Amino acid sequence: MNKTIEIQKNHKTIREFKNDHISKEIMEELLEVARRTATSNGMQTYSIIRITNKAIKEKISKLCNQEYIARAPELLIFIVDQYRNSQISTEKGLDFEYTNDMDKFFQGFTDSSLAAQNMVVAAESLKLGTNYLGSILNNVKEICSLLELPKLTFPVVGLSIGYPNQEPQLKPRMEMSLRVFENKYIKFSNYLEKLENYDREMQSYYDLRDANKRVDSFTDQVKTKSKLSLEKRKEILNAIKDQGFNLMIKEV
Amino acid sequence: MNKTIEIQKNHKTIREFKNDHISKEIMEELLEVARRTATSNGMQTYSIIRITNKAIKEKISKLCNQEYIARAPELLIFIVDQYRNSQISTEKGLDFEYTNDMDKFFQGFTDSSLAAQNMVVAAESLKLGTNYLGSILNNVKEICSLLELPKLTFPVVGLSIGYPNQEPQLKPRMEMSLRVFENKYIKFSNYLEKLENYDREMQSYYDLRDANKRVDSFTDQVKTKSKLSLEKRKEILNAIKDQGFNLMIKEV
Repeated sequence: MNKTIEIQKNHKTIREFKNDHISKEIMEELLEVARRTATSNGMQTYSIIRITNKAIKEKISKLCNQEYIARAPELLIFIVDQYRNSQISTEKGLDFEYTNDMDKFFQGFTDSSLAAQNMVVAAESLKLGTNYLGSILNNVKEICSLLELPKLTFPVVGLSIGYPNQEPQLKPRMEMSLRVFENKYIKFSNYLEKLENYDREMQSYYDLRDANKRVDSFTDQVKTKSKLSLEKRKEILNAIKDQGFNLMIKEV
Repeated sequence: MNKTIEIQKNHKTIREFKNDHISKEIMEELLEVARRTATSNGMQTYSIIRITNKAIKEKISKLCNQEYIARAPELLIFIVDQYRNSQISTEKGLDFEYTNDMDKFFQGFTDSSLAAQNMVVAAESLKLGTNYLGSILNNVKEICSLLELPKLTFPVVGLSIGYPNQEPQLKPRMEMSLRVFENKYIKFSNYLEKLENYDREMQSYYDLRDANKRVDSFTDQVKTKSKLSLEKRKEILNAIKDQGFNLMIKEV
C-alpha cells in the first residue's frame, strides 16, 4: 500500500546484528521520533536509558538470560518516569502523595511502549533490525539497582537495535477473526478447533534460534509458557511498590 | 531523513475529523499492521474492539467525557486479552491459576500499546489523523461492562481515526537531555530551572481546544494535573483484580 506499511507488515525480530555501529545522526533521529510520540496528557512520563557501557550491557544480558543482548550495537531501556514530574511538583510545593499513584504508573507504562514502537518503525524504515526485550522484567529489582533507577521509575521494555545479520521467516500470527470484535467481546466455545489452521501454520515455521527443530503449535506453546512463568515475574506489583508507587488496593 | 520518519516527527493529535468514512481496504490494512506487531513471547495477548454502533460510541464518548469521540469515523478499543489463552490452556487441561497472573497482564498491556502505536504510524502514512483516548480508564468498570469484556481482559487505550479536519500546531516537547540518559539514571537538583526554556516554549503554543487562551507552562500543568487526578483512576488495580487477575501482592 505504501513503503511504511510494507515495512510494518514485514516486521521480524532480529537477534543477530552486524558489527557496524549505528551513526550518531541516525541515533539522534530515532530518539527524536521517540520524543515526538503521543504521550498521555502531555505529561511525558517516560525516559530512556541508553546502554553504552560494555560491562553494564553484559550484566543486563545475564539478568535477561539472553546472551545475544551483549552483542547488540545499541541497547535502550524504556522506563516509566514519574520521578521527574514528582520532583517538579515538589519544587512547586505539592505533596508527594499526589504524584505516586498507579494511574500515573500506567500512563508512563503506555507512554514508554508507544515510544518504543514508534522507534522500532523508524529503525526498520532505515533498514535496521530490532528486538524487544521483555526479559528485563525477569529480574526487575536487579535491573532497577543496576541502572540506579530512583523512586517512581520502573523498567517497561528493552530494545536492541542494529543492522540485521540474519533473515528470519515471517512468523505466523493468529487470524483476525479471533482478535478483532465489533462493539463487544465475542467468546468462542472451542478455541482449539478455531486455531487448528494456525497451529498447523505455526508448526511449519522454523525459528532461527533452533533451525533444526520445528516449533510447537501455538496452543501447545500457550500451555507450556503458562506453566513456565517465573514466580518473580508474577509478583511484579511488589517490585512496583518497592519503587515507591502507591498500589491503592482496597482489599487483598 | 525518509518519508516514514518525516511523518513520525510531525505527529499531532487530531480531534476533529471530516465526515468521510475510512474504506474497508484501508481498515483491513491497518488491522493487518496491528496483527503483525511484535508481541511478547509470541502470545498475542491483546484484542481490538471496533466500535461501529452509534449508540455505543456515544456511551463511550460520555464515559470518557470527550464529546468529539462520538463523531470519530473509527473508534477502536485495545484490550489486554488473556481470556483467550486462558481458555486455550483450560481446554488443554491446565488450571486457571497458571493463567491469571500480573506478568501476563503486563505482557498484554505492552502488546496492546505496541499494536496501537504501529497502527497510528500506518494511519498517518495514509494521511489519516488519530487521537489516543486514555480517558477510557476514567470509568473503566463501565467500559468493561459496556463492551462485555470477560474475565482476564482489560481496556488499555482507545484510538479514534479519521481524515483530519483541523491543523494543530506541533506541540512542544521536553528536551532530550532530561529524558535520555547513558548507562544509569541521572537526577537533577533543580528541574524548574532546567525546564525554563521548555516552559516558555509551551506558553507560546496554542491549543486548538481553546484557541483564544495560551496554555500553562509545562511545570504548571504537571502540578495542576497531579492535583486533578481522578480517585477512580488511581484505584485501577482494584478494577484489574475485579477482571480476574491475581495481583499477587505479598503485603499491603
